[in-house]
Amino acid sequence: MNIVITGGAGFLGQRVLAALLEQPGLPDADGSVQRVETFIVLDQVAGQIADARVRYVTGDASDPALIAKVIDENVGGVFHLAAVVSGTAEADFDLGMRVNLDGTRALLDALRAQHAKTGRAPRMLFASSVAVFGGQLPAVVTDDTAATPQASYGVQKLMGEFLVGEYSRKGYIDGRAVRIPTVSVRPGKPNGAASSFASGIIREPLAGEEAICPVEAETELWLASPRQVVASLLHAYTLPASAWGHRRSLNLPGITVRVGEMVEALRKVAGDAPVSRIRWEPDARIKAIVQSWPARFDTARADAMGFGRDTSFEAMVRDYVDSAKGA
Amino acid sequence: MNIVITGGAGFLGQRVLAALLEQPGLPDADGSVQRVETFIVLDQVAGQIADARVRYVTGDASDPALIAKVIDENVGGVFHLAAVVSGTAEADFDLGMRVNLDGTRALLDALRAQHAKTGRAPRMLFASSVAVFGGQLPAVVTDDTAATPQASYGVQKLMGEFLVGEYSRKGYIDGRAVRIPTVSVRPGKPNGAASSFASGIIREPLAGEEAICPVEAETELWLASPRQVVASLLHAYTLPASAWGHRRSLNLPGITVRVGEMVEALRKVAGDAPVSRIRWEPDARIKAIVQSWPARFDTARADAMGFGRDTSFEAMVRDYVDSAKGA
Repeated sequence: MNIVITGGAGFLGQRVLAALLEQPGLPDADGSVQRVETFIVLDQVAGQIADARVRYVTGDASDPALIAKVIDENVGGVFHLAAVVSGTAEADFDLGMRVNLDGTRALLDALRAQHAKTGRAPRMLFASSVAVFGGQLPAVVTDDTAATPQASYGVQKLMGEFLVGEYSRKGYIDGRAVRIPTVSVRPGKPNGAASSFASGIIREPLAGEEAICPVEAETELWLASPRQVVASLLHAYTLPASAWGHRRSLNLPGITVRVGEMVEALRKVAGDAPVSRIRWEPDARIKAIVQSWPARFDTARADAMGFGRDTSFEAMVRDYVDSAKGA
Repeated sequence: MNIVITGGAGFLGQRVLAALLEQPGLPDADGSVQRVETFIVLDQVAGQIADARVRYVTGDASDPALIAKVIDENVGGVFHLAAVVSGTAEADFDLGMRVNLDGTRALLDALRAQHAKTGRAPRMLFASSVAVFGGQLPAVVTDDTAATPQASYGVQKLMGEFLVGEYSRKGYIDGRAVRIPTVSVRPGKPNGAASSFASGIIREPLAGEEAICPVEAETELWLASPRQVVASLLHAYTLPASAWGHRRSLNLPGITVRVGEMVEALRKVAGDAPVSRIRWEPDARIKAIVQSWPARFDTARADAMGFGRDTSFEAMVRDYVDSAKGA
């Protein structure tokens, strides 16, 4: 059995790949655990992890022709992580629609074609986002809260979720969509995501660099660490279909943190010097997107399904410092 | 100013057209009422209404090339009624996706291209459906209830709604999506809709023909008359954008009626003879679709926006009998 990881060369994708390589196997369409022969990583560039079981296929992960090349009868499942991030999707509407919506649909249709051939429903994990929520929301968001996204990225992810649910209902795939909280602390460089600052205000000061915080200290965020998100993606993929039933979308657990609390956690872990490198420069465009996301959730359903949760932002900063030392 | 009506040769489309022809004008992109020069009706066949201001364009209403032919800078708005009905969309997944989803997107992109050219945001009324709801629902559905469709038609309509909302948020169009209750009593012939019986069990017996009822007498439906639906579509179109705000989808008012009550209304209006022509033959496939639709709504938002509501099913039957006599 082969497994495809779209967007697998990215930061999260490489962590997912590393975690998958450590597994003895993964459940196939029948639920029995099978050894994975090859992890096919579909992304614009190759990733850093080199392993005999990893094959990098570079190109546009939303291109149906390229997708058709990697999805064949040996593919037992897909981790679909490839996406245009929120700020970019808002700035370039057509690019966001093509990659986030059409790319997801092309992948689903490729899996459906395999189902038509083999009769088996390939498993698919779709990385969705808390950004499917926006506008006027209840004080606490649950899995029953209507998603009313107010940004292109959220609309595209939500439509992807509905496709994953529908292809699952029709029996073409065995899909699962998880709404990932804002991930912090991400390593690497700032990106086009409106939430980029949520890692930048910790990462850059720790590296001795200045960071700009485009939102106020009172802004609340719904956060999860890279370690927890990777664990949740694997858990979502390996749960039996019966655990999902006909509800194939799920809000992942996270923690609610004010930006001011994040800065205080940085101070506790690394002292005053890094904190002094944060410049507060509110940016109306970023604020509008970030403030449309909810920060308080009741994830009772995910909790009951066995998903884990981070303990504190301070622990998340320490975890980042430790892994940065290790890298 | 021209107005395009997709699916305008159909039963509802012709009624909308007739109502529009009686209007002194319609609001343009700036909100000022303008006389409509031409109503361009895009459908597979021409309709029966002949008028100097009506032009029929026949073909596939989901074909981008045909759409591009009718959407130009003179088009002030669109009534988008063309769709593959629920039963057909469930039986032919690809057809439903192509017409209901891709067709809607092609229309939106054509309107967006005009916006890019003229700077004006064309108005668009999107006929959505109560079928966007399904699965486990609260006892009473509101505009805040999460839509979790459990049939292809509902998924496709819901995705269309999200597109209409998103293109409106981006300022490309001024869109409005209304979720139409099951329409009863429709004239004409049975169609591929799972709800076809909701008119058939009244219409066919009144015409001296046998009708099959595929659901139990206890089944509840959320109904609206053709007359009320047409009035609601016009109201939705003519309301100012400010009345919609950022919530571009709306549950239309209807009335909750048990199928058994429908039959008793028929008896009251036309006696025992027509009722004896109803054959009760439960159909698992149709029941599964119909029972996934909610039958009880709180439409406080629509009520506040000035949408009307039918008074009783008996009045709807009498209305049908009267209009059938007139035809």
